[in-house]
Amino acid sequence: MMIQFPEPLALAQARIEPLLQHYLAGSPEAASRLLSAMRYANLEGGKRLRAALVYTAAQTLGVALEQADSAAVAVELVHTYSLIHDDLPAMDDSPLRRGMPSCHIAYDEATAILAGDALQALAFEVLASDENVAIGTRLKLVHTLATASGLQGMAGGQMIDLVYTGQNQKPGLWELQEMHRLKTGALLQASISMGCICAQLSDLVIQKAILAYGEALGLAYQIQDDILDVVSLEGDLGKPQGHDASLHKMTYPAVVGLEEAYAMRDALYQQGLAALEPIPLDTSRLSTLFAFVVQRSS
Amino acid sequence: MMIQFPEPLALAQARIEPLLQHYLAGSPEAASRLLSAMRYANLEGGKRLRAALVYTAAQTLGVALEQADSAAVAVELVHTYSLIHDDLPAMDDSPLRRGMPSCHIAYDEATAILAGDALQALAFEVLASDENVAIGTRLKLVHTLATASGLQGMAGGQMIDLVYTGQNQKPGLWELQEMHRLKTGALLQASISMGCICAQLSDLVIQKAILAYGEALGLAYQIQDDILDVVSLEGDLGKPQGHDASLHKMTYPAVVGLEEAYAMRDALYQQGLAALEPIPLDTSRLSTLFAFVVQRSS
Repeated sequence: MMIQFPEPLALAQARIEPLLQHYLAGSPEAASRLLSAMRYANLEGGKRLRAALVYTAAQTLGVALEQADSAAVAVELVHTYSLIHDDLPAMDDSPLRRGMPSCHIAYDEATAILAGDALQALAFEVLASDENVAIGTRLKLVHTLATASGLQGMAGGQMIDLVYTGQNQKPGLWELQEMHRLKTGALLQASISMGCICAQLSDLVIQKAILAYGEALGLAYQIQDDILDVVSLEGDLGKPQGHDASLHKMTYPAVVGLEEAYAMRDALYQQGLAALEPIPLDTSRLSTLFAFVVQRSS
Repeated sequence: MMIQFPEPLALAQARIEPLLQHYLAGSPEAASRLLSAMRYANLEGGKRLRAALVYTAAQTLGVALEQADSAAVAVELVHTYSLIHDDLPAMDDSPLRRGMPSCHIAYDEATAILAGDALQALAFEVLASDENVAIGTRLKLVHTLATASGLQGMAGGQMIDLVYTGQNQKPGLWELQEMHRLKTGALLQASISMGCICAQLSDLVIQKAILAYGEALGLAYQIQDDILDVVSLEGDLGKPQGHDASLHKMTYPAVVGLEEAYAMRDALYQQGLAALEPIPLDTSRLSTLFAFVVQRSS
């Protein structure tokens, strides 16, 4: 069963697609295969959850969406590059992504590696060149995205995942949380932070509240991901169901059992909603996004 | 026969090593395999030519080297990430680099992919976070490096190389130049530009002269690289001699012949020296670096 996309996601999707088209238009003729692969991976669907988090945080704090456009584009570019590289044979070896052949299947491995590399560079180029955004703000966005995607964030988390994958020993809950805090959580958290940076947020109470929301959301997102790998229908998921289990990946259902995974997810949802309470603004869009994260079927 | 490193290179090498050590120190425990691979690829040698170009441009324009440190580190990080990814089995499949096992041999393919990804992110993190450099300058450095390393630069050039490699038709000189202008030239040119940005260069005559020097140097560098693949001793080169030829890569000796490649290289050297003439400053260090580029044996 497909869930309707809630308004904050639908808005992000409508806004981000023409922006991605814009940033992925034109190129030197001879490199056109590379651009084609970059477009293939970026423009064929995707929930645009990270863009929605950027926009929703910015909107909640009262800033015009134009101010958040390049941040939203940049997180989506980084997210897509990480999916391309994660799907490679040497990594998760996943032939499907978003219901379509993965980039290295549709093109080839070398092109997929380069497309990921070029998308990462493009993300920073987009952030640095947006003249609608103050220089100091652009620089903070670059710093936040770079930190979240590197050794201390996404790439570091993916490394931990690979080290554990296929090992026979059952890792503990702590290791699992730590891995996901880096692998998925850091970029989700960065998306929210970047929305706050676009709004030049300086109120420490609001900052703390939004970051606590983001931390709960990041973990809940991953738990739902792991649950879906066990229970969802393959057509909904857009990738082979049971793929994580077949790789002996450590997942929440594998470590704590399916029932406990549901309970943890729901507790994080309540925790995220409670975190928003001290914010003296309309936080309903942030709540809506969290509800989507824990209810989604793909 | 090893060439002694000229002073601008020796200075860059002495300066960059502790900086790289600094930026590649410490990490979350569980991601330590990733950091280890990043250190392995960065700290085991390398001529540091790109760092030398940053420092030498900055020095020529009279700016303190401290102002150019993060730019020098960032270009070396990007250069190293590109070497790691280029050596992968799906790309050039090169088992040796700088006389040592390539990163994917010393570790594994997945770790090498992630190490490259994390090094690219680190480059932008280093640039964005250097508080010794003015905010506007840092942002220009980010923009210049991102543009030079992505679709319209290094990654785009590598794609063209891969598309041509193994094809039976002999590409023309124009295609060869265009490929190298992107694949190698863009980052060398960016190194020089970043040195100029650190010095907040605004004099257009000097700017044009230095960029013309950089363009000649970038091409001459690649021609010498191709020549060395044919004539050098394997021990000097640090990678298998004849490797490019065995991949049916298009190289200058393959396209124009060895004698003509030497002549083109020497003409570019003269062109680079002539380009420096309008600059009313001591450009001897820039000349020295160019001499090294065309005389090097590895």
